[in-house]
Amino acid sequence: MENNEGIEELKGNLLVAQSGGPTVVINSSLAGIVQEALNYECIDEIYGAMHGLRGILGGQFVDLAGESQHVVRGLRHTPGTALGSCRCHMDDSHMGQIFSSFERHNVRYLFYIGGNGSQAAINCINNHAKKIGYPLRAIGVPKTIDNDLVVTDHSPGYGSVVKYVATTVREIAIDDQSMGDYDLVSIVEVMGRDSGWIAAGSMLGRTRGTPFDAPHLIYIPERPFNDSEFLASVKKVLETSRYCLVIVAEGIRNAAGNYVQTSGIKDPLGRTELGGAAEYLQGLVEKCLKIKARTTKLGIAQRAAAHCAALRDNEEAYECGVRAVKYAVGGESGKMVTIIRESDTPYQVSYGLTPLDEIAGKVKEFPQAWIDESGSMISNNFMRYMAPLMQGEVIVPYKGGLPEYVHLAGAEKFAKRRGGEEFLRQ
Amino acid sequence: MENNEGIEELKGNLLVAQSGGPTVVINSSLAGIVQEALNYECIDEIYGAMHGLRGILGGQFVDLAGESQHVVRGLRHTPGTALGSCRCHMDDSHMGQIFSSFERHNVRYLFYIGGNGSQAAINCINNHAKKIGYPLRAIGVPKTIDNDLVVTDHSPGYGSVVKYVATTVREIAIDDQSMGDYDLVSIVEVMGRDSGWIAAGSMLGRTRGTPFDAPHLIYIPERPFNDSEFLASVKKVLETSRYCLVIVAEGIRNAAGNYVQTSGIKDPLGRTELGGAAEYLQGLVEKCLKIKARTTKLGIAQRAAAHCAALRDNEEAYECGVRAVKYAVGGESGKMVTIIRESDTPYQVSYGLTPLDEIAGKVKEFPQAWIDESGSMISNNFMRYMAPLMQGEVIVPYKGGLPEYVHLAGAEKFAKRRGGEEFLRQ
Repeated sequence: MENNEGIEELKGNLLVAQSGGPTVVINSSLAGIVQEALNYECIDEIYGAMHGLRGILGGQFVDLAGESQHVVRGLRHTPGTALGSCRCHMDDSHMGQIFSSFERHNVRYLFYIGGNGSQAAINCINNHAKKIGYPLRAIGVPKTIDNDLVVTDHSPGYGSVVKYVATTVREIAIDDQSMGDYDLVSIVEVMGRDSGWIAAGSMLGRTRGTPFDAPHLIYIPERPFNDSEFLASVKKVLETSRYCLVIVAEGIRNAAGNYVQTSGIKDPLGRTELGGAAEYLQGLVEKCLKIKARTTKLGIAQRAAAHCAALRDNEEAYECGVRAVKYAVGGESGKMVTIIRESDTPYQVSYGLTPLDEIAGKVKEFPQAWIDESGSMISNNFMRYMAPLMQGEVIVPYKGGLPEYVHLAGAEKFAKRRGGEEFLRQ
Repeated sequence: MENNEGIEELKGNLLVAQSGGPTVVINSSLAGIVQEALNYECIDEIYGAMHGLRGILGGQFVDLAGESQHVVRGLRHTPGTALGSCRCHMDDSHMGQIFSSFERHNVRYLFYIGGNGSQAAINCINNHAKKIGYPLRAIGVPKTIDNDLVVTDHSPGYGSVVKYVATTVREIAIDDQSMGDYDLVSIVEVMGRDSGWIAAGSMLGRTRGTPFDAPHLIYIPERPFNDSEFLASVKKVLETSRYCLVIVAEGIRNAAGNYVQTSGIKDPLGRTELGGAAEYLQGLVEKCLKIKARTTKLGIAQRAAAHCAALRDNEEAYECGVRAVKYAVGGESGKMVTIIRESDTPYQVSYGLTPLDEIAGKVKEFPQAWIDESGSMISNNFMRYMAPLMQGEVIVPYKGGLPEYVHLAGAEKFAKRRGGEEFLRQ
């Protein structure tokens, strides 16, 4: 059977999964997928896989169409991954199990919301489907606070993390400025193992837009960090300002390529546990300059602060979910939804599709041209790129003085107690 | 000349100052003082002293009555201390200089917004005025995120910091719960050098109110911290929950009274620089339990997060400012405004006055009875005390995607450049 546009209609069930680190808008994409899917007769059941690949492998699905309207609406402002996430990697050895699960559940539409690792996973699944002739339409939905997905102008999740970081940096700057007894260095550590996209975004927190405005210094992994250059920069700032506000990405490295940090802790996988970059800088300032320094490490708060999400980011995340379903129903597969910036002023975007082969595993680096000569400040070209992305405020409902977030009723049985989650330890 | 109540009218100028660490509502108290003062003919000029005692000593005053309505209204949601703060201590040797400044500026009303150190300062000034027969009405306005002022049921600033911490903890918990591949310990470090009031407040972030809900463990300075008890508690939590969310006050100490932390940095005054408590716990978990742990240190963000302030706290801070003026005009002096809780449900307060002698330099400790037997959790009696204090949301105006805060026009000349602030270095 053919539809009006000559595309063969594919009838069956939909499966959506979330993967990698959460953002405050990843559930908005999920809501977009669910709400759009309800419009198509060719889509029967709407399943969500618990904990990404884990749930796909084990067939741990929840019935998303059975969730209440209240919950699906609530997803649009709830942080975390409502379906749960995973960090495990997929390879060809998983395909047999995945496709027998798809077959058993009659899965014909697959949506994976995630970063470049997740896009590689869905690419792998899509290629396997083609190889074995399994009728599947698989579309990737972009998500990352790191903004490192290629092709797309930016990724849902990034605008909100910058809104939160810039808001917090503006507030810390006002507090720093309040103190009047002594020179003060204030250091804020933000996320970014390999990239300065988030640290750079702190620039937006500037109030007056003058060179004397905070943040004064920004250090990102793209430029090697040098102790004495840093100390000289701090001293220079303190010649004209009473305080010096420094932003540092957690993953800064010195010229030898070693992480600049105090902890030296290895995580259970043997990777260097990031954290301690701010404390390292604090130690330098206090020991070498004898100036008081204080630190803030926003940590997980920055990617979970749904109470401070950007409305534009949230709406784009939702729209990416909607478009993914439209494209799949229209016959597309093996591609990721991308955001195309049509103009800065007024800000206008359109949506497109790019083959996953061109996206999977690739990294969009922070442009060197946007770092100024000193290496410790970001140029205005970045400000023009960034400013539109954090516009608007998501109105979160409050109850008892706190934001009210939702849980998927179907996910509760997996989430409530360890006993219900033994499948995760397979 | 006598007014209706038989109180002698005192004609002259008003001086207000702010001191100590900022809160997100300290400027709301300032706005309350300014707006109430405009109602009285006996008050001529309304001055603000820049940077607390520094500005009082040097006569660096700004004309608050000359500020625009826009700015005074904006103070009600602006973090930091709009007049600037100081940490310097006052003693009898300053009195000559202070009172010659008062004399020169015809200061008859003095309001000092601050914590117990600030209340001691105003007490000292008031006692000196009585001694030399200088006609002065001096009233303290309570302010502290630490909630450690005695007599008053709670202090303005505390409700908002807890609202922010509880919001953030709730959001981090949702993020923690999203991850599904591994056991996870998440550690959040909050303020509290000597007291657990803020750390305890994180309890309010619980969503479900069950014993399995996060935060799972809370460590406060009031109870000695023990490494092996901590590790045993974490293991116990991980038996029933996939993640363990730990809140730790920056000032926790072991049984020997030493700070539990990694940094060991001394600040320029030789005091142990707090920070690193979370990293210390992280190291324990990763080394001893071989479980991944991650840290967040909210730092200055927690006392500056005006975008997440509690409306009730904000309104009470404003009212404390208003009452201070009313009391002073009514003839009172040498006292601090206090908040008296009349009932929990419905929440009702009245305002009162307490002699500064009963408040200055004293500390309200977190009640031992509110710590449960395990020492790592807080009882429901605290929840009943705390819950009303963080109700309501302050609506902050946004511009360009960020909160719009105000600066006192009169303070700009002191704040803009170091050149304008040389008085601070006297």
